[in-house]
Amino acid sequence: MTGPQTLSFTVVQWEGGVVRLLDQTRLPDVEEYLDCRTTKDVIAAIQRLSVRGAPAIGVAGAYAVAQAAWLRVETDPAAFRAGLLPEMQAIREARPTAVNLAWAVDRLRGVLDRVDGRPVQEQKDAVLAEARKIHAEDVAACDALGRFGAELLPAAGTVLTHCNAGALATSGRGTAISVIYAARDAGKDVHVLADETRPLLQGARLTAWECRKMGVPVRILCDNAAGWVLSKGGVDCIVVGADRIAGNGDVANKIGTYPLAVMAREHGVPFYVAAPTSTLDLSLASGDEIPIEQRASDEVTIPQGRGRVAPEGVEALNPAFDVTPNRLVAAIITEQGIARAPYVESLAAMVKAASGS
Amino acid sequence: MTGPQTLSFTVVQWEGGVVRLLDQTRLPDVEEYLDCRTTKDVIAAIQRLSVRGAPAIGVAGAYAVAQAAWLRVETDPAAFRAGLLPEMQAIREARPTAVNLAWAVDRLRGVLDRVDGRPVQEQKDAVLAEARKIHAEDVAACDALGRFGAELLPAAGTVLTHCNAGALATSGRGTAISVIYAARDAGKDVHVLADETRPLLQGARLTAWECRKMGVPVRILCDNAAGWVLSKGGVDCIVVGADRIAGNGDVANKIGTYPLAVMAREHGVPFYVAAPTSTLDLSLASGDEIPIEQRASDEVTIPQGRGRVAPEGVEALNPAFDVTPNRLVAAIITEQGIARAPYVESLAAMVKAASGS
Repeated sequence: MTGPQTLSFTVVQWEGGVVRLLDQTRLPDVEEYLDCRTTKDVIAAIQRLSVRGAPAIGVAGAYAVAQAAWLRVETDPAAFRAGLLPEMQAIREARPTAVNLAWAVDRLRGVLDRVDGRPVQEQKDAVLAEARKIHAEDVAACDALGRFGAELLPAAGTVLTHCNAGALATSGRGTAISVIYAARDAGKDVHVLADETRPLLQGARLTAWECRKMGVPVRILCDNAAGWVLSKGGVDCIVVGADRIAGNGDVANKIGTYPLAVMAREHGVPFYVAAPTSTLDLSLASGDEIPIEQRASDEVTIPQGRGRVAPEGVEALNPAFDVTPNRLVAAIITEQGIARAPYVESLAAMVKAASGS
Repeated sequence: MTGPQTLSFTVVQWEGGVVRLLDQTRLPDVEEYLDCRTTKDVIAAIQRLSVRGAPAIGVAGAYAVAQAAWLRVETDPAAFRAGLLPEMQAIREARPTAVNLAWAVDRLRGVLDRVDGRPVQEQKDAVLAEARKIHAEDVAACDALGRFGAELLPAAGTVLTHCNAGALATSGRGTAISVIYAARDAGKDVHVLADETRPLLQGARLTAWECRKMGVPVRILCDNAAGWVLSKGGVDCIVVGADRIAGNGDVANKIGTYPLAVMAREHGVPFYVAAPTSTLDLSLASGDEIPIEQRASDEVTIPQGRGRVAPEGVEALNPAFDVTPNRLVAAIITEQGIARAPYVESLAAMVKAASGS
């Protein structure tokens, strides 16, 4: 057993007013950083998925707010606030499903309200300090939930995951994949099977890339092949991340998660969700209330922008997320511990612990 | 109600010793025909999926045998037979899962046995006549099963299908999609949702192409999005084809069919399989005995040959088919009628009817 391995890449960074993002649309071919110098740059980067993954979007959104504040030229506190609020709203609405973005912006709004009327520089400093705090908490949450989740993994076996809920989806070591990293750190012999995750192939491109970087054995498969592997006994458990979790434990996550959870139950394989408490949205009674982003048809019909595969004029349905009902979820792994059914109570306890910590 | 629409393309053709195939690897971009002049050409075309779909492979295999016979130069019947048999075996083994290929070759072997010792030209004529008969029967079977299956479809609604079990998968109007064409011919208002079907995108490329050619409204979606659409009530029934059906009704079909069947049951949507009796393999007691073809990793990691998406060195599992247990199948639609559970009896009756017809 060795200590936890550190990351050789940085997903989100604050560099003196610049929000620096690892451009994930270029991975695995090129490891290139994107310097976002304006709020519009960050919003565009979030929308085209240069930064993605609910926790990472939350941190990027927090820094976007800090940057929006930083760049404002007003010296009058009221004018500063009046200019900043609409920018914050635009950041909050950059993408609809992952709640971490709204959660981070709302938290900064709380700070802003507390320093309302104070000198502008003081307000800017307070917002940046809180954004840094959100960032640091995310890093710590990834480590903590990884350690909690590692207990659930077998001493040796194959873990199937979907999309990328790894270091690339957070500012730390990830959610679902942090669990795998922590299991490996604890001496467990874990192999990863990564669903490629159409249409944007976050599994094939990102999960495979970071697992190799971190020395974790990984193979990929088409999303539609997971059922076959499960039926052959080739999967010991499934761990995925989440974009938003309702109060009852219904989980919105990357499209394809729900059928995976149904197949897991069909084959008696535990289905785990790993997410920081910032992903919990107790204001929603169930997953029915989670807005599901519908993305452009071209993401499907022109894969990776490398040429049209469907005939001209044929449209694709392209929901970016689906909702997995709580009854299919064996446990939700958070930085506060492991929540199990009934989730209404266990998730409320997690949020309470987080706010008290 | 109008008469059935005829096809504007020909998937498999015998042209005076040449086996002409519509090169389906080029669709939907280019409608190009491949003239196979040797047995090796046909085998290569089957293996790289220029011709695919169990019934179409059966017809192509039959013509490949006729061609192998046609091209042989021996005049001595025994030498002719001794040269032809290994070629027939090579054709029979071109792909393992679809039983129609072995079925067609075995049928020609039966003809060859019956004319054993007769003059070579007579043997060649007998084999070609039987190949043409297999072809004609496939066309007729597609029409017949389409009409039977059309009864099962709603007067108006959305049918989800997987891969391409259409005219492109047969030498006639298809299997699953023939059902849809026949429903439309009968005045039903049927819309098609086509799973794109990774890795080779037969749904996005081929099903979408032929539905548009035939004037049937079609949209595509990623395989992993079908669960979401089902959960939203967006699918009235599912119809797929088959590559091999065991005596108990277990169905081998394109990878991703099995999870679709599980999701159909989860949402109370009927799951139908359409296949000619040539796809039934009563020699197998269950789907466990069906050999599943494993294809190259590159089909997944380098989609459509248009550039690698997974990091160099990452391998993909790539099973080409999976097996759907009989308990998930609401009905099997054949050219002899509709078989329902218990399938051991109903499928045996279908085969008996076919052999007597």
